[in-house]
Amino acid sequence: MTTTQPKSAGTDQSHLRQGEVTVPLPEQTDAGLYFIGRVRTPWQSRKECPKNVRESRERGTVCQIEVDPRWQAAMAGLETCTHLIVLYWMDRARRDLVVQTPRRYPEGRPTFALRSPVRPNPIALAVVELRKVEGNVLHVVGVDCLDGTPLLDIKPYFASTDSIPDANVGWHAARKAAEAAED
Amino acid sequence: MTTTQPKSAGTDQSHLRQGEVTVPLPEQTDAGLYFIGRVRTPWQSRKECPKNVRESRERGTVCQIEVDPRWQAAMAGLETCTHLIVLYWMDRARRDLVVQTPRRYPEGRPTFALRSPVRPNPIALAVVELRKVEGNVLHVVGVDCLDGTPLLDIKPYFASTDSIPDANVGWHAARKAAEAAED
Repeated sequence: MTTTQPKSAGTDQSHLRQGEVTVPLPEQTDAGLYFIGRVRTPWQSRKECPKNVRESRERGTVCQIEVDPRWQAAMAGLETCTHLIVLYWMDRARRDLVVQTPRRYPEGRPTFALRSPVRPNPIALAVVELRKVEGNVLHVVGVDCLDGTPLLDIKPYFASTDSIPDANVGWHAARKAAEAAED
Repeated sequence: MTTTQPKSAGTDQSHLRQGEVTVPLPEQTDAGLYFIGRVRTPWQSRKECPKNVRESRERGTVCQIEVDPRWQAAMAGLETCTHLIVLYWMDRARRDLVVQTPRRYPEGRPTFALRSPVRPNPIALAVVELRKVEGNVLHVVGVDCLDGTPLLDIKPYFASTDSIPDANVGWHAARKAAEAAED
């Protein structure tokens, strides 16, 4: 198979932050992904990039989802959707951290409790607002990735099953409350 | 690379339904996935399986997400979440349909406007309710897949960014309205 990510990108021990824990990656991958397009954003470096979907939405930057012409016939009907789920491949993220220390957190956090791109399968998920469709290009608000990030999938967002307004992430809410108490 | 899906599973022209359109798949995949666990459900055949997440939620069946022990340290903190996003790999789905005819629809529908498992990258997404965590096993309500389906990722569900209660899928709403008018 072809991969854009050298093996060393997922296993380099020299760039670990305080509290981070790695595991050995499996010898082989189990299935293959096709890159079906690219996400076009104005952000060329991590520093410029919004740190998550919330920040991207607050900025309101309209970005482009460019679908490979091979798949364009699969896009009809998307223009009737107000919101989409977009999956993209964070090809620069290491894959072997089970506990990680995001820049803004003081201590290590387990990977699956975070939305960080660093995870065994670095599939990012953004719920985006669809502004316009032009041929094989979707104009959207809400992606949080670098320009050129590989696209994996586009799905319609169904409020009936995807929207849980009262869902709670307990550890995160507790942290926010503690921060507010400190202010 | 190793893959659980023979090439023929994605390209067999003999099982197309009326209105379905295929495209040639790319020669190679671009990135590799690790199966990080399995989804355990009571459903051994497509006939038994709920047809989508809504139906699964209505049934209320508690299913298990079994995470490979390699990744267990990444799970701490999940027990504080009410809801999770689970990604799994629909390994029996063909990947070359750009227009498809799901069983309950009379005409072909473009792939990206559907939540069908049949898509270039058959990554299914379910927002599940977390009932209990026991070691490397999550007990959840809301998955819609066969027993043994490979697990790809677990993410916390943040209402602040993931919940859009007034999102609309226009083509689907129009279809529902037409059905109601016929009754």
